[in-house]
Amino acid sequence: MSKRTIAILGATGSIGTQALDIVRRYPDRFFAVCLAANTSAEKMFDLVREFRPRTAALAVEPETIPEDVRFCDWYFGADAASRALAASGAQDALCAVVGIAGLSGVWTAFEHCERLLLANKEALVTAGDLVMPRAKAAGVPVLPVDSEHSAIFQCLQAANGNPAARLILTASGGALRDWPIESLHDAAPEDVLKHPNWTMGAKITVDCATMLNKGFEVIEAHHLFGMPRDMIEVVVHPQSVIHSMVEFRDGAVLAQLGAPDMRGPIGYAMGYPERIPYEARRLDFAQLKELTFREPDRERFPCLRLAEEALDAGGNACVTLNGANEVAVAAFLRKELPFGAIAEVIARVMDETPVKEIPSLEDVYEADRAARERAWKAVGRL
Amino acid sequence: MSKRTIAILGATGSIGTQALDIVRRYPDRFFAVCLAANTSAEKMFDLVREFRPRTAALAVEPETIPEDVRFCDWYFGADAASRALAASGAQDALCAVVGIAGLSGVWTAFEHCERLLLANKEALVTAGDLVMPRAKAAGVPVLPVDSEHSAIFQCLQAANGNPAARLILTASGGALRDWPIESLHDAAPEDVLKHPNWTMGAKITVDCATMLNKGFEVIEAHHLFGMPRDMIEVVVHPQSVIHSMVEFRDGAVLAQLGAPDMRGPIGYAMGYPERIPYEARRLDFAQLKELTFREPDRERFPCLRLAEEALDAGGNACVTLNGANEVAVAAFLRKELPFGAIAEVIARVMDETPVKEIPSLEDVYEADRAARERAWKAVGRL
Repeated sequence: MSKRTIAILGATGSIGTQALDIVRRYPDRFFAVCLAANTSAEKMFDLVREFRPRTAALAVEPETIPEDVRFCDWYFGADAASRALAASGAQDALCAVVGIAGLSGVWTAFEHCERLLLANKEALVTAGDLVMPRAKAAGVPVLPVDSEHSAIFQCLQAANGNPAARLILTASGGALRDWPIESLHDAAPEDVLKHPNWTMGAKITVDCATMLNKGFEVIEAHHLFGMPRDMIEVVVHPQSVIHSMVEFRDGAVLAQLGAPDMRGPIGYAMGYPERIPYEARRLDFAQLKELTFREPDRERFPCLRLAEEALDAGGNACVTLNGANEVAVAAFLRKELPFGAIAEVIARVMDETPVKEIPSLEDVYEADRAARERAWKAVGRL
Repeated sequence: MSKRTIAILGATGSIGTQALDIVRRYPDRFFAVCLAANTSAEKMFDLVREFRPRTAALAVEPETIPEDVRFCDWYFGADAASRALAASGAQDALCAVVGIAGLSGVWTAFEHCERLLLANKEALVTAGDLVMPRAKAAGVPVLPVDSEHSAIFQCLQAANGNPAARLILTASGGALRDWPIESLHDAAPEDVLKHPNWTMGAKITVDCATMLNKGFEVIEAHHLFGMPRDMIEVVVHPQSVIHSMVEFRDGAVLAQLGAPDMRGPIGYAMGYPERIPYEARRLDFAQLKELTFREPDRERFPCLRLAEEALDAGGNACVTLNGANEVAVAAFLRKELPFGAIAEVIARVMDETPVKEIPSLEDVYEADRAARERAWKAVGRL
């Protein structure tokens, strides 16, 4: 079997590390030809020693490059990941960069790769109206790596041409789902970062606690699967066993279930259409006893409502939502902003920002910059 | 759109009636060209008036045939259904006859039809080793109509060539699932016929209460999907919302869910691969609140164990199991046998019957006859 070449953008992050676990387990199937990270130089040197990629990238240039990793082509700077990806000849690009910074790698993948494995949410949240038509024009399939969208994608494999009637996104409810509503406002980063089911990066774990993450996923699902918002439903399912569902027009629902382990959706995208066996924890239904469901509480989770409003507004509104949130979450993690004020920052910035079209990536970046500026000002005022 | 022609064997039964509901709803899609029933002459006359089939069959010839239904070709006698099916030119045969009597219609479908829609369990339970190779040789796909097997079949549409690692059959647990174990023995037919979730015929409702029905489904799943018994698991799921599941080798599980309405799986098989929209009750996850699971209790449900033993034994053992059960259930419904003695009759007959190969349909019928004879004797002794 010839090895599939893969570029991993965000190689030192949570998704990237788990993807490299799979590469490590299946050296006959995968060759990580490009690794890119932001600032974690020492970790990158170790990965380069182990995986021996063709190209490597760091956004911030380190003072020295050790002798034993100089065999590969290094790229440095803000656009290093994209240049390293383009030069690597990778068939697949796994874009696991956090934040809007992932957008340029996604764009490069459309020009240079056969498939995009998309773990970055912001590319679709901020620029879904540009990304999906570009993917289509380039003939590059977008394989979702998020557990929810992977679940929907897996269920849709059974569609046989039948259109989906409803997408049902499940939500764990995040770390604070059972906190008394009056104590939510002052939850500390330490509390918020204890996700009940999944091990993920810090930013997304905060987004889970505000449920903005689920709002982002509604926006992503809208773009990925071409579904209007009123055909996408969110249900709180604290056990995170059902990863999401698709309803067809005969009322039948297909669901994808599994242990909460991101190597599931990562491996599914990497091996697609083949399922790669790995020592996954198998579900034991008699053991797990019950799966519960409830409606999301939009009082408790105003960010979910804000995301739905942004999707309805269209244009730059989702960019504004995302940019304001990135700032608010950073401020929260730095203890400059209480947890309960994240939604307030986003709401203020959205209120202050007129909705307009975003015909190009430059407009996306400009809308993002404007949102961040307004958000930092709002943080300062709160 | 040209209409698909369908023969409905067992037209006056529970499955047949619901299939005709779908034909009635979609007269542009389906033409019921053949209707066959056992003894319900008056019901058949009404159906013939309404659906105007090409051929009609009754196992028991009525004294008179009303003038206004003589336009179609009538067949009478034990093999009437098969002859009417063969003469009808039906593309699809829905075999919804109860019991081993359904086997001949199945065989005829392989000779004369494009597809078999299989609601009869006994064809696979008693003769799966003959039926599946025959279907394959004839190039006739077998579309399961049982809700569990339809669920598995629907999930397998997403397989993309990946083998299933485990089939998980869900079981409601039947009408007596929560009865104190010591009172089970004397449950009356009135109690047993109250199925908690599904509306079905009397015989299968009793089989649900003994859980032999689930044992039959393990045997059917083994034949339909070519899975060894140790890769087929039964889990009790009282809500009957998850109709069954498939696990793949990466640990991912696909499940099919829906309201407990047999028109789901019937319509799926009739329309396959297209899903026919009908006013199905849609699942409301926030409303249904919880799905629970537990291991089946083989003390409470000895029939499940007996079915697993029969499948392991092979040869005529499943014919013996089924024949003994048909007699025991009939005796129970006639109040000749207590509920708790159904398993005892089956166990005795299986003990008394040497296991041997069944190379032909004649051997199946002979093994069935022998099992019934032994079963009536056992009923008499108990």
